[in-house]
Amino acid sequence: MSLIVMKFGGSSVGTPERMQRVAKRIVDSQLAGNRVIVVVSAMGDTTDDLIDQSKLLNPNPPAREMDMLLTTGEQISVALLSMTIHQLGHQAVSLTGWQAGIRTEAVHSKAKITDIRPDRLFKELDAGNVVIVAGFQGMTEDGDITTLGRGGSDTTAVALAAAVKADVCEIYTDVDGVYSTDPRVVKVARKLNEISYDEMLELAHLGAAVLHPRAVEYAKHNNVKLVVRSSFTQNEGTSVKEEAVMEQGVVVRGIAFDKNVARISILGVEDEPGVLANVFGSLANSGIDVDVIVQSGVKSGKADFSFTVSGDDEARAVDVINGIRAEVPFSEVTSEAGLVKVSIVGAGMVSNPGVAATMFKAISSLGVSIKMVSTSEIKVSCIIAAEPLQEVVRSLHTAYGLDTAEQVFVGGPQDRR
Amino acid sequence: MSLIVMKFGGSSVGTPERMQRVAKRIVDSQLAGNRVIVVVSAMGDTTDDLIDQSKLLNPNPPAREMDMLLTTGEQISVALLSMTIHQLGHQAVSLTGWQAGIRTEAVHSKAKITDIRPDRLFKELDAGNVVIVAGFQGMTEDGDITTLGRGGSDTTAVALAAAVKADVCEIYTDVDGVYSTDPRVVKVARKLNEISYDEMLELAHLGAAVLHPRAVEYAKHNNVKLVVRSSFTQNEGTSVKEEAVMEQGVVVRGIAFDKNVARISILGVEDEPGVLANVFGSLANSGIDVDVIVQSGVKSGKADFSFTVSGDDEARAVDVINGIRAEVPFSEVTSEAGLVKVSIVGAGMVSNPGVAATMFKAISSLGVSIKMVSTSEIKVSCIIAAEPLQEVVRSLHTAYGLDTAEQVFVGGPQDRR
Repeated sequence: MSLIVMKFGGSSVGTPERMQRVAKRIVDSQLAGNRVIVVVSAMGDTTDDLIDQSKLLNPNPPAREMDMLLTTGEQISVALLSMTIHQLGHQAVSLTGWQAGIRTEAVHSKAKITDIRPDRLFKELDAGNVVIVAGFQGMTEDGDITTLGRGGSDTTAVALAAAVKADVCEIYTDVDGVYSTDPRVVKVARKLNEISYDEMLELAHLGAAVLHPRAVEYAKHNNVKLVVRSSFTQNEGTSVKEEAVMEQGVVVRGIAFDKNVARISILGVEDEPGVLANVFGSLANSGIDVDVIVQSGVKSGKADFSFTVSGDDEARAVDVINGIRAEVPFSEVTSEAGLVKVSIVGAGMVSNPGVAATMFKAISSLGVSIKMVSTSEIKVSCIIAAEPLQEVVRSLHTAYGLDTAEQVFVGGPQDRR
Repeated sequence: MSLIVMKFGGSSVGTPERMQRVAKRIVDSQLAGNRVIVVVSAMGDTTDDLIDQSKLLNPNPPAREMDMLLTTGEQISVALLSMTIHQLGHQAVSLTGWQAGIRTEAVHSKAKITDIRPDRLFKELDAGNVVIVAGFQGMTEDGDITTLGRGGSDTTAVALAAAVKADVCEIYTDVDGVYSTDPRVVKVARKLNEISYDEMLELAHLGAAVLHPRAVEYAKHNNVKLVVRSSFTQNEGTSVKEEAVMEQGVVVRGIAFDKNVARISILGVEDEPGVLANVFGSLANSGIDVDVIVQSGVKSGKADFSFTVSGDDEARAVDVINGIRAEVPFSEVTSEAGLVKVSIVGAGMVSNPGVAATMFKAISSLGVSIKMVSTSEIKVSCIIAAEPLQEVVRSLHTAYGLDTAEQVFVGGPQDRR
């Protein structure tokens, strides 16, 4: 008898028919001999509707009150899903985050889980219930309701799986697994049977929005076996675990890209200690995430450097840089939006020299110039012009031998909570 | 500095404009020097919408899961009301029933409050917050969420007022107080400035739907001073307290009526011990509430008796009686729907003989025959034909000297949660 955690996103339970299909799937898993804990997100547009209601009354509501408001969305989902399972003649009990023993820091809208007390979960499992837990939420030691922020329901599922030592944590989504790249861009994108945590983490961070990076980190840290699979098909899905089996000759597992990148360049900066800390500290204080950073060599005491931000933050980032000109003298700040970041990811890269060279060659053979490069042990990222993105990704997919098996892509955009 | 509890029903917060008006009213009360606890119901149609959603998935959902679902309605209200107060530049904190320390029996859909632990309430008041508590809900000792059933938010308000020893519990509603009778029926109905708990209890039970009887009982038992007033005007409202000042010459405080009454008569019943217990036990087991019961004299070992039920239960009640014919032999069961119960209520009745006679005379002078009579220390009820109800109520209103001051009636139907 296995103990499993099944997580369903908001679009998987967005209509009565979908809710019934999910209930059936859960019951089938229990009938197959499993003890089942389910984590579910708010249905369809519930969260957006609640946010719209709040904006009419307060455009900048306190985060504590927003958490009180938004957590009702998941509470509605779990109650309705439990009722649907009862209608199928099976036992289920719904629990809020605090009822499931999920304790968090005293931070609102993006709390981290500090502790899970699984007594209630085991009590309900022992009574023969499917236990349905509201995702995305927890409680502080003082009894305030918190939310976990983006990817919260994925994180809830993984954290529960770790706390109860589940055999597997199944993440049900709109697609039937993790792909070698976005199948909407490259038709021959392959579904991966296995992937390592680190590879998944790079792919998740790089825009392959199947699984939230926080959840992957949590799974890696607690060695929780994850399976990403479709809630609409019986396909096997993708296993995410410590060491993925190396497929023959494959050093690159997948290709990710992020389409909304801007590059900011600061030229002629005085090369003094603390300059970089000042620049990036100011950006962080303004809530701007910086991704790739490249500093060129110093000439006559002056340096140039460039960094990338989300295209949405381009104007604000330039404002922040101009705002610190008094403290950090420089000669010029320039920016360029409409760029993309293309990345190749694979744990096999470490032991295979020449992987990056293949990437640069594939890109430049299309006449595309590479504006910035960033590398880690298991990935290489290039910042390039937005066009021709499709050709670049296809060319890389072929160059790294990922085209070997065609698969039909099923599904649409992901929900990200 | 007074400590007050203000309770607002769902229609008082049903639109953003109403929510803002309620927030303003709360802030004004705090600015006037009060420490304020607010209890609020689910907004407008929220509860009905949630019930409709659940019916699509399970026509008979478990009560525990229904409580999980419905309590989200009040949680949404309190969060939004708190945000609205913040938008006015004041401090507020919203609390669910369990956060407010409301403990109940382990019964779903109609739990009774067993205990209130007000530590959190005082902590938030001491921090200068308006404390906004979700009505209608509590938590069992085992950490399950419960609801209090009909009149639940009124009961929450009164119970909190008792627990924190509030100076007054203000119930805001659509009308500006308790009336001598329904102003839609008798134009000269007078708003009462004061009424005793017992009188209010009789009026509440008898269909004057301003305040739920459970809440009045709770207030009487804990000696909580209640004020019923309009959320739309600044009028003074009606005080409900231990001993209402007797207005000169007034022995009857008000006239209530219930329009949907059916009379069931069982004729020729064997007069044996346990017969009544059997009949009314069977009705109770079928969930049928019996109101007035009249037994006529016994002739040759056989008795006739009659009782009233809600018009909605007429057919089922007859079925139940026919179903126990084997155990309780009788010669005939008859029923008559479309009746009304008219009641006069007043604590002054006890010391004023002849009050009932005035009622019978006023009714019979209109050519209306009285089918049943029931009395208590502070009320007399008559079951009569539905027509002419208006003339009967007007005639009683005049006969008991209640027409003395005309008042304009403001407002519409009550919300009852």
